[in-house]
Amino acid sequence: MKIHYLDNSATTQPGAAAVEAATQMMRENFGNPSSLHRLGIRAEAAVEQARHIIADSLGAEARNICFTSGGTEANNTILFGAAEALKRRGNRIIVSAVEHSSVYESAKRLSTLGWDVQYAPVDADGVVALDRLKALLTDKTILVSIMTVNNETGAIMPIERIARLVHKLAPEALFHTDAVQAYGKLPLKPKKLGVDMLSVSAHKIHGVKGCGAFYLRDGARILPLLYGGEQQNKLRPGTESAPLIAAFGAAAGEIDIAAGQEHVRRLNAYALERLRALSGVTVNSPADALPYIINISIAGIRSEIMLHHLERANVYVSSSSACAKGKRSYVLEAMGLPDERIDSTLRISLCRDNDTGDIDALIEGLKSGIETLQRK
Amino acid sequence: MKIHYLDNSATTQPGAAAVEAATQMMRENFGNPSSLHRLGIRAEAAVEQARHIIADSLGAEARNICFTSGGTEANNTILFGAAEALKRRGNRIIVSAVEHSSVYESAKRLSTLGWDVQYAPVDADGVVALDRLKALLTDKTILVSIMTVNNETGAIMPIERIARLVHKLAPEALFHTDAVQAYGKLPLKPKKLGVDMLSVSAHKIHGVKGCGAFYLRDGARILPLLYGGEQQNKLRPGTESAPLIAAFGAAAGEIDIAAGQEHVRRLNAYALERLRALSGVTVNSPADALPYIINISIAGIRSEIMLHHLERANVYVSSSSACAKGKRSYVLEAMGLPDERIDSTLRISLCRDNDTGDIDALIEGLKSGIETLQRK
Repeated sequence: MKIHYLDNSATTQPGAAAVEAATQMMRENFGNPSSLHRLGIRAEAAVEQARHIIADSLGAEARNICFTSGGTEANNTILFGAAEALKRRGNRIIVSAVEHSSVYESAKRLSTLGWDVQYAPVDADGVVALDRLKALLTDKTILVSIMTVNNETGAIMPIERIARLVHKLAPEALFHTDAVQAYGKLPLKPKKLGVDMLSVSAHKIHGVKGCGAFYLRDGARILPLLYGGEQQNKLRPGTESAPLIAAFGAAAGEIDIAAGQEHVRRLNAYALERLRALSGVTVNSPADALPYIINISIAGIRSEIMLHHLERANVYVSSSSACAKGKRSYVLEAMGLPDERIDSTLRISLCRDNDTGDIDALIEGLKSGIETLQRK
Repeated sequence: MKIHYLDNSATTQPGAAAVEAATQMMRENFGNPSSLHRLGIRAEAAVEQARHIIADSLGAEARNICFTSGGTEANNTILFGAAEALKRRGNRIIVSAVEHSSVYESAKRLSTLGWDVQYAPVDADGVVALDRLKALLTDKTILVSIMTVNNETGAIMPIERIARLVHKLAPEALFHTDAVQAYGKLPLKPKKLGVDMLSVSAHKIHGVKGCGAFYLRDGARILPLLYGGEQQNKLRPGTESAPLIAAFGAAAGEIDIAAGQEHVRRLNAYALERLRALSGVTVNSPADALPYIINISIAGIRSEIMLHHLERANVYVSSSSACAKGKRSYVLEAMGLPDERIDSTLRISLCRDNDTGDIDALIEGLKSGIETLQRK
């Protein structure tokens, strides 16, 4: 029975090229990239090749890319590392109210450690309100972190405009964007956008779970989160996961933003039309959201109930963020959605491998769910 | 041409079972372990199965095991997490002078952050001197971290005796041991040893680079290093690398301490006899070292020169720790070795897959090296 996997913002299926790269490294290129002999140098070459591919995809240089164990470690390194590095210049840190938990919880921790953490509110579309952000920016602001695309709604933040505001009104601040959900789906050139730091994750772009990276602009300095060996200029010590890094490079090498957007935009339109025809369905994603993510609410049916109903038809979606494991979404709360709508949310997230058959299966599942579950 | 890989303390070749497990996860079980649907639950089951295997191997419960991205992250989490959690009870932290850089550099960082960090010296064999350690233990000591086996010399520390000393003389302190080089090679039951926290790494036991774990005793509390999602009871958030964790479980499931020791002990004796017959070779590892590691110096030939000479014969060894990338060893300095002996050090490290043919190739390579290189 075919799987209709519509939970690609939680994780994607590793692509053939990524699996092949990881397997080849495990079997044939197992040296420690730090070893001075040939087996080490071969492994190091594979790591550096991947670093160049990731750098190219961001219009950056290999020296700007630091590999981590994933988006969470990338975001933590940047938040704590920038806060520590700049603490003599000011105390204020600003994050949006709808950040992924790895930014949101890091910011909360920084707040308990004494930093003045402010949360930039969002409008009804889930987009950071620029006027509200402006009012928070001061010359004591040292770090601003606003995600490129929200992981629950697909809302796209105006990163280039935000970067300009930050650099103008908070000249001491580094500007970071968590681009985990945007990478491979939107053109992302940090230099052009005015972004100082940017995080990405392999397993959201058909790489393998356990690998991520961040971009750090030339001249921007942060402290490391981990201490140890000489790897990655001591910015991130620890033996590099050469197999996962090679897989990340292979996945990044396959990125085709235009083709992906075209395919997914068509699927998204097809899905929205059919979703809107269902009784009780409201679309929570804004009209100009990233087409890869569709957030809906279904009147009177709790998320988990519908989620489990759909999985009986081999249709896989998410209640909200996978990392939140069933907790009520603070993202939708920040958008001002009423509780009953939040509690009946489903996130449908697409990828290049989905087709209209997946959408048809979803619609059929939702239809039968709405007919049978609402009565209970 | 056969590869004679004698650098197993830097990294091991992933075993067939580990590669198979990782590949199977990437291809067939790619869900996010935090997803509420069946694909998530299947991935979570694989992670939990591996957690049980690692726990069993340490005589612990699954709830005591937390997965990380490797030994470096495990050691950092424990050092910073224990220091933060216990800072109200005291200020002193003790590590040995020969710890791996991921403990050593973390301790140095804690020192700059205001903790009173003390380094326990070692004797000429590279073993922590118990009397000197005793003198450092106070009721203001909150953390003691002493490795089980030194990664450069194979020196085995008397962990059970140290644990007793710590708990007697520093009752507030948590005792941690970095067991990365000991795991799978020595019986390690933290509860029996009196160890509160213990770190291990997958890629030193024929798992895959990018995965590690730590044991945390019931009732011992540390703060996390990473903040974010709900994974692993928030002690280590971030999407678990299910493929690498499954591979780690597969590798741990193959551990056979007795068989490994018997095989490697024989190889070690064979190697030592032949090494001692070579002119200018001194053995730096103590007589009762872990047989997996043999540290030698070769009079008048710098480490890198001999290392590259050996690799021409497909014999791979290390100059010191792979993580130090050619820097002078502070471990051998702490043992009181003269500079010229330190600069001519080679580390030969064995595993279950080595045979006498590997040792013969090493000896031949060393012989020809001693004949041709010393003259230069």
